[in-house]
Amino acid sequence: MKDKGLLVVISGPAGAGKGTIVTELVKNENVEVSISATTRSPRGQEKDGVEYHFLSREQFQEMIENDGFLEYAQYCGNCYGSPKKQAVEWMEQGKDVILEIEVQGCEKIKKQNPDCISIFIMPPSLEVLEHRLRKRATDSEESILNRLARAREEIRLAENYDYIVVNGPIEECVYDVKSILNAEKLKAKSFDINTILK
Amino acid sequence: MKDKGLLVVISGPAGAGKGTIVTELVKNENVEVSISATTRSPRGQEKDGVEYHFLSREQFQEMIENDGFLEYAQYCGNCYGSPKKQAVEWMEQGKDVILEIEVQGCEKIKKQNPDCISIFIMPPSLEVLEHRLRKRATDSEESILNRLARAREEIRLAENYDYIVVNGPIEECVYDVKSILNAEKLKAKSFDINTILK
Repeated sequence: MKDKGLLVVISGPAGAGKGTIVTELVKNENVEVSISATTRSPRGQEKDGVEYHFLSREQFQEMIENDGFLEYAQYCGNCYGSPKKQAVEWMEQGKDVILEIEVQGCEKIKKQNPDCISIFIMPPSLEVLEHRLRKRATDSEESILNRLARAREEIRLAENYDYIVVNGPIEECVYDVKSILNAEKLKAKSFDINTILK
Repeated sequence: MKDKGLLVVISGPAGAGKGTIVTELVKNENVEVSISATTRSPRGQEKDGVEYHFLSREQFQEMIENDGFLEYAQYCGNCYGSPKKQAVEWMEQGKDVILEIEVQGCEKIKKQNPDCISIFIMPPSLEVLEHRLRKRATDSEESILNRLARAREEIRLAENYDYIVVNGPIEECVYDVKSILNAEKLKAKSFDINTILK
């Protein structure tokens, strides 16, 4: 029997580099990233089922009632959630499923899925984070300061995660996350000794 | 400040391939292998300080009294122990220290060093183990059967270890152990968030 895949929560401040890491991880055919559902409208080039599953408020509410989310939350007046069905199917196929979610979402996931693995992507320093946010140059000064203040709050909660990966050079960081996923699968508790002693 | 190195216990049946793995691991300058002390006499080409530290019974007893061992045991009338001083020095230098020891020794180490990481090297099957033992061709039939019986006992205790690595292709196995050591260093509990929030 194929081992079940892992449920992997990845969080970290905006600008810490989560997106780049996840893009590298899903190049492995045994790793999938969960696409969130949201009630907000698509922006620019966003396509349904690619960046998000775009749902109406009624559809979202129905999914909540049918226990269709691993976690969901409201943010700036819109709802966001991690659909359960696809994630469970992937895990049963032995694939690791990555949820890139907020710090608050992680706590909810952990309560209902105590076996999930949580990884916090930490910027090397607040100065580096600020530099990265400014380099994007898409945000106003106010928005950058807001994001930095929020990052401090998120970093304070990092100790609730299982692992903390400092995002320095991207290859190292990707190696670190891959190490974590590999090591988690080698834990003795997930090994059936009877397969050897049979 | 440099992080402290890990204390890593590696066990597994004779013929499971521990030696080959340890040889590969110590090619990394930040990994050291602890050399056991013993009261038995050197055999063949064995040199003091290479295969073992060869001690008299009096020297061994003195080390026990001075709390000089991480663990020690008697086996076939001789004493074997893992010297503490060198291991502690290496760890303080940030080096990981590998102890290749018996299953019984692992339990003793864990009691006194709850932070140690324990890895059991598992043969892919008892048939493969038997084949490897026979290929060595240095042991009598009786000795091979004894080793196999003992292997079954050891495998039963593997679930007390933190991790189980099945020894298939050596590169995979070495990658697995390296993943474990890397992931252990990324655990959130060993990260000081104040270094970021300072």
